[in-house]
Amino acid sequence: MLVVMKNDATEVQVQAIIREIENMGYRGVPMPGAQRTAVCIVGNQGPVDDSRLLVLEGVKETIRVTKPYKLVSRETHPEARVIAVGDIKIGGGEPVIMAGPCAVESEEQALTIARLVKKGGAQVFRGGAFKPRTSPYSFQGLGEEGLKILAKVRQETGLLIVTEATDHTNIELVEQYADIIQIGARNMHNYSLLRRAGHSSKPVLLKRSFAATIEELLMSAEYISSEGNNQVILCERGIRTFSDNTRNTLDLSAIPCPSSLTPAMPPDGGTMSSPCPKGLSPSVPTACWWRCTTTRHMPSPTGCSPYTPSSSAS
Amino acid sequence: MLVVMKNDATEVQVQAIIREIENMGYRGVPMPGAQRTAVCIVGNQGPVDDSRLLVLEGVKETIRVTKPYKLVSRETHPEARVIAVGDIKIGGGEPVIMAGPCAVESEEQALTIARLVKKGGAQVFRGGAFKPRTSPYSFQGLGEEGLKILAKVRQETGLLIVTEATDHTNIELVEQYADIIQIGARNMHNYSLLRRAGHSSKPVLLKRSFAATIEELLMSAEYISSEGNNQVILCERGIRTFSDNTRNTLDLSAIPCPSSLTPAMPPDGGTMSSPCPKGLSPSVPTACWWRCTTTRHMPSPTGCSPYTPSSSAS
Amino acid sequence: MLVVMKNDATEVQVQAIIREIENMGYRGVPMPGAQRTAVCIVGNQGPVDDSRLLVLEGVKETIRVTKPYKLVSRETHPEARVIAVGDIKIGGGEPVIMAGPCAVESEEQALTIARLVKKGGAQVFRGGAFKPRTSPYSFQGLGEEGLKILAKVRQETGLLIVTEATDHTNIELVEQYADIIQIGARNMHNYSLLRRAGHSSKPVLLKRSFAATIEELLMSAEYISSEGNNQVILCERGIRTFSDNTRNTLDLSAIPCPSSLTPAMPPDGGTMSSPCPKGLSPSVPTACWWRCTTTRHMPSPTGCSPYTPSSSAS
Amino acid sequence: MLVVMKNDATEVQVQAIIREIENMGYRGVPMPGAQRTAVCIVGNQGPVDDSRLLVLEGVKETIRVTKPYKLVSRETHPEARVIAVGDIKIGGGEPVIMAGPCAVESEEQALTIARLVKKGGAQVFRGGAFKPRTSPYSFQGLGEEGLKILAKVRQETGLLIVTEATDHTNIELVEQYADIIQIGARNMHNYSLLRRAGHSSKPVLLKRSFAATIEELLMSAEYISSEGNNQVILCERGIRTFSDNTRNTLDLSAIPCPSSLTPAMPPDGGTMSSPCPKGLSPSVPTACWWRCTTTRHMPSPTGCSPYTPSSSAS
Repeated sequence: MLVVMKNDATEVQVQAIIREIENMGYRGVPMPGAQRTAVCIVGNQGPVDDSRLLVLEGVKETIRVTKPYKLVSRETHPEARVIAVGDIKIGGGEPVIMAGPCAVESEEQALTIARLVKKGGAQVFRGGAFKPRTSPYSFQGLGEEGLKILAKVRQETGLLIVTEATDHTNIELVEQYADIIQIGARNMHNYSLLRRAGHSSKPVLLKRSFAATIEELLMSAEYISSEGNNQVILCERGIRTFSDNTRNTLDLSAIPCPSSLTPAMPPDGGTMSSPCPKGLSPSVPTACWWRCTTTRHMPSPTGCSPYTPSSSAS
Repeated sequence: MLVVMKNDATEVQVQAIIREIENMGYRGVPMPGAQRTAVCIVGNQGPVDDSRLLVLEGVKETIRVTKPYKLVSRETHPEARVIAVGDIKIGGGEPVIMAGPCAVESEEQALTIARLVKKGGAQVFRGGAFKPRTSPYSFQGLGEEGLKILAKVRQETGLLIVTEATDHTNIELVEQYADIIQIGARNMHNYSLLRRAGHSSKPVLLKRSFAATIEELLMSAEYISSEGNNQVILCERGIRTFSDNTRNTLDLSAIPCPSSLTPAMPPDGGTMSSPCPKGLSPSVPTACWWRCTTTRHMPSPTGCSPYTPSSSAS
Repeated sequence: MLVVMKNDATEVQVQAIIREIENMGYRGVPMPGAQRTAVCIVGNQGPVDDSRLLVLEGVKETIRVTKPYKLVSRETHPEARVIAVGDIKIGGGEPVIMAGPCAVESEEQALTIARLVKKGGAQVFRGGAFKPRTSPYSFQGLGEEGLKILAKVRQETGLLIVTEATDHTNIELVEQYADIIQIGARNMHNYSLLRRAGHSSKPVLLKRSFAATIEELLMSAEYISSEGNNQVILCERGIRTFSDNTRNTLDLSAIPCPSSLTPAMPPDGGTMSSPCPKGLSPSVPTACWWRCTTTRHMPSPTGCSPYTPSSSAS
Repeated sequence: MLVVMKNDATEVQVQAIIREIENMGYRGVPMPGAQRTAVCIVGNQGPVDDSRLLVLEGVKETIRVTKPYKLVSRETHPEARVIAVGDIKIGGGEPVIMAGPCAVESEEQALTIARLVKKGGAQVFRGGAFKPRTSPYSFQGLGEEGLKILAKVRQETGLLIVTEATDHTNIELVEQYADIIQIGARNMHNYSLLRRAGHSSKPVLLKRSFAATIEELLMSAEYISSEGNNQVILCERGIRTFSDNTRNTLDLSAIPCPSSLTPAMPPDGGTMSSPCPKGLSPSVPTACWWRCTTTRHMPSPTGCSPYTPSSSAS
């Protein structure tokens, strides 16, 4: 439920609402808007009795939020959220291109690709320092050394950095070095990690799990938002189906998403069967502001297979 | 295998090749090109010994076709095929819009929608006269009466007509009235019907089955081509997956298809959860020349449910 | 809707009910039971007003059938149907084993396998004379010659015969030779063929399509039943999923099926990755009366690949 | 690669092999057997040159392990592993029944169900104290209080306890109280948690993720084993498909699994659409030693929906 305050409601009145919501056994999250504030009630299992709230001062009306996700719902926040990172605006209407290799392998590799993708129009550089791998024996990333290389890429090219955090220990490091924290598909259900990302001041790029429904993706975003971080970018990266002509099947219909969050799609993870730098421009849906391309500048020494240079585990 | 003839090879030499191929137990299909002719060998289970062919007069070389589909392969016919119907060219670079209702329900309904979609930019009118229905008790279409209404739509609006044939009896009628014969997703594996469509002089729009791989779709196109009809338009219409936010999941990656045939995609069948007339323009991939939109001008009296006005069985 | 007649209702009263149902614009199908007769109303799109029926003589009550399938529903026919073919009872509690090769290739092959599977406990011999093939260039079966071989197998071994009909022409022949007519997965949506099978006096084994829901399978069975043939055996043969450890994923939960029809499952099509003769006994679920095993006695001369000897198109 | 030692090889010789493997840049894991020891080489990306090993004393032969999973492969450990917990043997041929509610809700609830399932034949009690929930606002389990209730259930009924650990903090607690640590489907790709479970002396029940291939499941088991814990029980719990007649589709073919680990299957998670206590006996495949049934003794006060009492997130 959303408690909408009058235009001239005072901060004291908002605090009184939040206290009353706590008395009722729930939690009240203030959602300041351009003209007025609303307070979102979270934590209720069923319908909320609003009679105790409607009589309080400063309350204009209450609106039921019918979705299981509250804070990320367009019912709660009708406008699309725009996330400002450095000079760029993600969700501001203009597509933002994020590109880079699966894994950071060396300074030379990262810088070579970064210059290439910058020339191609990218504003954000991606590359994994911590790689979630199907096999315990695979290259797991350069770790902090990789993060330092990413920092150097930012310094030399001006590109912003997005890179993945895979657990409760490396998220501390990733937070220090990255401009955007990536949560990979395999961790979309790792609620402990999602809560931790919710405490960060950095935006979070959340990838859809192989077999997650859109509602489950939004519920995972809700985990992040419910801890206070509303800067969530959703990434449709393809789902698992019987279809065998690409590694994953891009679920394009996920893009016009029912939440207020910013959608993103990787052409390589879902659609493409081969890497696609060049002009970095294959078929950008109009509703898609973000894109992530995996690139390779030379054969990999680390065991990423050549025909799927994209992050098999990102 | 493809037997490529020299530029100056004579018709007599081509016929000699075909006879020799028949002597070897296969079938030879001549593929005339702008500059020279090739003969495609079909019917072989394994590799073909080309020694008896290379020594014949007029033969330039032989090329192995490695795909299980032969006539529709780009190995056999490298350029994309352009299908001319009336004044329009399908596959000629410009998108062609095909739009119309699920089923033809009345002359008034068909003409009303036809004028609407023509204004919206459509060149081809779609509408079912024979409807394949999950239930034996559902409205199965107006039959020949529906075809006559479609003929009237063409006469009054100048729109071309595409409509579905569902079995060996109604394909005769559909062939007489339609400009393009549609084979629906449920009949993609109906090889008997595909062969019959292969004897037609009209182009065939072949829809992908719910769970067909791209290779299976191309093999079904091969059934049509192997009977002599090379005018096949492939239609990606969404596949079945666990994802529940749309009725089907559009497999966008099917569009850059490895065959020489013309791909098509319906935005409503796969992507959209609601009908989308207006300007008929949501997100046309650059590789997609064809589009099919299901429209409705008023509540249906025939049992097509309102929330899935699109052809639930087309 | 089901119109249940009183125990002592006369045939004249039943006919009066059917006429009144026809006057209302629907069709009435008599369902004789052990003690009394019911008349099932089919062809209605929505609820039926039973006031005109309840006042007629001999009517005990009316029961709404809430499923989209009527005649095959347990609401209409609460007991499981038992199909008697020759000396065996399919659905009578005891599992019936149907086994044999993908395709009939020669008399020697068929007889060799038939003797083998009879020894293993099978009561019914399966083998395709008409094979639906993904490729137009593959071996399509021996046709009527294959049917004659099957007749010989029956004569020599006493095994009953189940074999597939693939279109409106060969179903006439199959009907003459077979004890059970098989409709393959690729024709589960071929409503024209289903209706034709509904006119047969022979039982029909209906296989579930690769991507059909249980409801769609039952609706296809309803097509057969609505033409008068209630002897339908349903065959769960595995569905298409992302899972790659078997060719299809057996949907075991289809077996306790909500219809009155007889379920069947093939261990090779769904579960097994290799042919499984020996004692023909791997894991028979208790609710499964029927089983179909593909066997091979020697390398195939007809292009059925050795690692999937099972009916790749049956 | 597996380095098989001679029957009379000494511990000193085994240690020399391990040192040499480390010199080669890999890791050697000793696998003691009844008669002789083998050393498994892990950490290699490609083929290993065994010439330096074959010349060492005590070495009988080397065997290439062709699977990406090494320690859990039947190539490395041909016999099925038997896991002894308390008095029971999991994988010893006799099915072991593990049953209990989705979540531990109270002492009364847990004890009531525990007595019921013990009577029904169960040897192990399951129940969640830490619940991974799709929604951040759902009941997340009683935490340590729930674990104490489980300890009481063991004390009073003699049933062993399996319960889920969801992150790096609660796994410490779960390890103290449980006999078997459960890793849920949503954490099957949580490699950090898998490694931690690999350091435990308690057996681990690893559930297959919604969309994991069998190979990915085995690779996750390999994560656990590669840290030293070979007591892994695999749990097939149903996968996500288009099929909508059950919540998940049980992939029965996963049971005859190519690893040496112990497979398990929950009838409720995959097959059943309703809870199934009674005699706890529906269709146990012969290859399945373990089973997990979710039971409910009364309506839930915690928001577990009544029609899916099973662990929606376990």
